[in-house]
Amino acid sequence: MQLELLTIGDELLLGLTVDTNAAWLARELATDGVSVVQRATVGDDATRIAAAVRDALDRTGAVITTGGLGPTADDLTKPSIAAFFGQRMEFHAETWDRICQRWRERGRPGDPPEANRQQALIPVGAQVLPNGHGTAPGLLLEDAAGRWVAMLPGVPREMRGLYEDELRRRVRQRLGEARSVIRSRTVRATGVAESQLPELLGDIAQGVDGMSLAYLPGVEGVDLRLTVRGAAPDVADARLAAGAAIVVARVGKYVYAEGHIDLAEVVLAACRARALRLAVAESCTGGLLGARLTDVPGASDVLLGGVIAYDNDVKRAQLGVAAETLAGDGAVSEQVAREMAAGVRTRFAADIGVGITGVAGPGGGTAEKPVGTVWIAVDILGDVRTYGGRLIGDRAEVRFRASQVALDMMRRALVAPE
Amino acid sequence: MQLELLTIGDELLLGLTVDTNAAWLARELATDGVSVVQRATVGDDATRIAAAVRDALDRTGAVITTGGLGPTADDLTKPSIAAFFGQRMEFHAETWDRICQRWRERGRPGDPPEANRQQALIPVGAQVLPNGHGTAPGLLLEDAAGRWVAMLPGVPREMRGLYEDELRRRVRQRLGEARSVIRSRTVRATGVAESQLPELLGDIAQGVDGMSLAYLPGVEGVDLRLTVRGAAPDVADARLAAGAAIVVARVGKYVYAEGHIDLAEVVLAACRARALRLAVAESCTGGLLGARLTDVPGASDVLLGGVIAYDNDVKRAQLGVAAETLAGDGAVSEQVAREMAAGVRTRFAADIGVGITGVAGPGGGTAEKPVGTVWIAVDILGDVRTYGGRLIGDRAEVRFRASQVALDMMRRALVAPE
Repeated sequence: MQLELLTIGDELLLGLTVDTNAAWLARELATDGVSVVQRATVGDDATRIAAAVRDALDRTGAVITTGGLGPTADDLTKPSIAAFFGQRMEFHAETWDRICQRWRERGRPGDPPEANRQQALIPVGAQVLPNGHGTAPGLLLEDAAGRWVAMLPGVPREMRGLYEDELRRRVRQRLGEARSVIRSRTVRATGVAESQLPELLGDIAQGVDGMSLAYLPGVEGVDLRLTVRGAAPDVADARLAAGAAIVVARVGKYVYAEGHIDLAEVVLAACRARALRLAVAESCTGGLLGARLTDVPGASDVLLGGVIAYDNDVKRAQLGVAAETLAGDGAVSEQVAREMAAGVRTRFAADIGVGITGVAGPGGGTAEKPVGTVWIAVDILGDVRTYGGRLIGDRAEVRFRASQVALDMMRRALVAPE
Repeated sequence: MQLELLTIGDELLLGLTVDTNAAWLARELATDGVSVVQRATVGDDATRIAAAVRDALDRTGAVITTGGLGPTADDLTKPSIAAFFGQRMEFHAETWDRICQRWRERGRPGDPPEANRQQALIPVGAQVLPNGHGTAPGLLLEDAAGRWVAMLPGVPREMRGLYEDELRRRVRQRLGEARSVIRSRTVRATGVAESQLPELLGDIAQGVDGMSLAYLPGVEGVDLRLTVRGAAPDVADARLAAGAAIVVARVGKYVYAEGHIDLAEVVLAACRARALRLAVAESCTGGLLGARLTDVPGASDVLLGGVIAYDNDVKRAQLGVAAETLAGDGAVSEQVAREMAAGVRTRFAADIGVGITGVAGPGGGTAEKPVGTVWIAVDILGDVRTYGGRLIGDRAEVRFRASQVALDMMRRALVAPE
C-alpha cells in the first residue's frame, strides 16, 4: 500500500510557488491507508520528468503526479510520460467538447483559444478523468506489468476536485480494501512552549500505547500529533481516541481543539452555545481577527462585525476612545485596548467586545514599546480581561499571534478549565 | 553549482504541514546561482534520513536539510547524520549557555526543561551555526572528500534567520563567485484567463530572447515568469529587464506588478502618490481586505480603517445603508455595495470608500444569487465604479477573489492604462 508523489513545475523547484498539493494528497492518501514513502519535485523538463517517473515506478510501482497539464508550452507532463510508456498522443473529441462547454458557461465569447486544444490531446490507452473544476482532464496510464501513473493538474482547486471526483475511488480499487492504515489525530494547544510539553506529558512524552507523539510548533501554538501505523481502521481510530483523551487531560487548559479546527471556530461555537454576540475593534491586526472569524462558515449568527481602527481619529470617532487616553497612555496601551473593546461592544450592541492595539513592525518600535508590543482587552458584558506582552516574529507573525492571543483569551474566559 | 534539499518530518510526509521551507530556500539559492536539482522529503526515521542524505551526496555532493532539530524524541536529524558521517555526539556548553540565556530573556522562570539539553548535543567535528531566533543551533558537517551537509531547524522563522545570518555566506564561499546564475522575473497579471494570454503575447507566448516563459495561475491572477539559465548575473538581469518590458507591453492593463509584490501594496502606493486616504466596508470578506492592506508595512498613511459590517444592523447603524435598500434590493446588491462605500467614505472622512457584499458560501446561495455572487463598489471622491459577478472557488477563494477584484478596481481607476 505504498506510492510516491511527484510534483512537477519549475515554479516549485525554483521556490516561486509553495507546494500545497503534495501535502493535501499525502493527507488524503494516509486516511485510506496508503503510505507516501517518498516525495520528489522536478522542473518542467521532459527528461527529468520521465526519469523521476521511472525511478518512482521502480521503487513502488505507483505514482501520482501534479502539474504540467496546462494549455501552454511549458506543460510537459503528458508528452513526457506518454513517451516513457511508449504511447503517442491523440486528439480526444469528448474532452474538447467539455472544454468548449466550460468556456461558454463562464460567459466568455467565441471558442476557447487554440492553446486549449493541447489539453484535449490524450496518450493512447490512457483513462481520461473528466475535470469538473477546470479545463485540463486528469489521466491514468498503466503498463503491462500493472504499474501506473495518475496525472492531475497543478491548480490546487482543480487537483483536489479531480482527486475527490475521479481518482480516489480508482486508488481504492487498485489498493484493495485497506486492512492496515496509518492514521493520526492531532491535539492542538496554545499559550505553552514546545519545551514545556514533555514535563506536562510525563511518561507519555514520547508516545502512548505504541503510538508515536510528535510536536509541531507553529504560529498558532503547538500541535501534538498521535500516529498509529499498521492497524485496522476501526482499531486505529479507537486507539487514537483513547490516546488523545490522555494527552488532552495532561495538557489541560492549553488544549483548544482536536484535528484541523481553527481557534476561531472554537470561539464562535463557545459564543453560540451561550448566545453571546461578538464585535471586534482592531488596530495593529487591521481586520485579521475579523477575517479569521468570518472564514468560518456560519459566523454570522455570532459575529456582528467590527471596526478596523488603524488611525487614531477612527479610534476616537468610531469607538469613543478618549483623546486624553490616546495622548496620555499612547495608542498602544492597556487603557486604549480597554476603551476599544468597550466602545465596539456598546456601539455594536454586542455582548463581547475585543480591542487589539500593538506595534506590528518593522517600524514604529521604541525603547519603551518595542516591535511586538501588543495590548488586548476582552470585554464580556463589562467583565474585562487584558493581556500585555511582546510577541515574537515578523510583522505577519506578530499580527497573527495577536489574533490568536485574543481568541484564546475569549476561549479561556468562556470554556477552558483553569 | 548544484545542491539538493531534504526536508525532514513525518508531518511533511503525512501532509499535515505544508513545506514552505523548501520553496524559500530554493528561491534564495537560485538568486546566488545555485541550482536545486532535486527536492525530497522523508519522515522522522533515522534509516531513511541517512539513506536520503547518502543518495543526495552521491548525486551532487551538497545537501541542506531542514527539520528534526527540536527538543523532543522525534527529532532525529542530528544523530542520523552524525552516524552516517561516523561521528559521535558531544555536549556543547556554549550552545547550552545560549539556550539558557534565551529562556531567561523570554521571561520564563528557572532553567530550561531537560528536553532542551538534547539541542546542545553536537556531532564531533561539526561547525555550529548559532541560532539567534530559537533554541536549536544549525550545523555544518563535511567529510574528507569535501562533501557537506548543512542542517537547519524546521520552524520557518528560525530556518530563515539561520540561513541569512550564518549559512548563506558559507554556501557562497563553498560555491565560489557565481559566474553563471539562474534568475527569474515575474510579471503579475489579474482579471485575465490563463488561456487568453498566448493570444495577447503572440510570438513571445513561449519565451523571449531564449528565456523561457511560464504561466502560473492562482487565486490572485496569473503570474508570468521569465527565466534565464546559465548567464552571468549582470547579463541575466539585463535580459530579464528587457524581456519583462516586452511582456508588460503586450499584457497591458492586466499587469499590476512585477516580482512578489501584492496588489494591496500597489494600491497603497497609488493612493499615497495622490495623497488619497482609504476606508473599507466589508461584509462577505469580513476584514480580509483590511488585513491584506495592513499586512503592508507603512499602510497607516493611506488606510484610515474600516467597518466589518457582517450584520445588516451594522450596515445600517455604522454605515448608513438605508433599511429600504436592504429590504428591497437585498444585502447582496449593487445598491448596498454603493451605500456601504459611500457610508464608510463619509463617516471616516476618507477620499476613497470601498464596499464589498456577497455570498461566500457554502450556504446562503439562492437561484437568483448563487454562492460566489459578489457586488463591489469603489467610490473615489464621489465617482463610483461597481462590479457584480460570480466568483469561483470555495468560501476562502471567493473571499480572496473578492478582495482582489476590489483592489484591482482601485488600481485601474488610479493608475492603469485602459
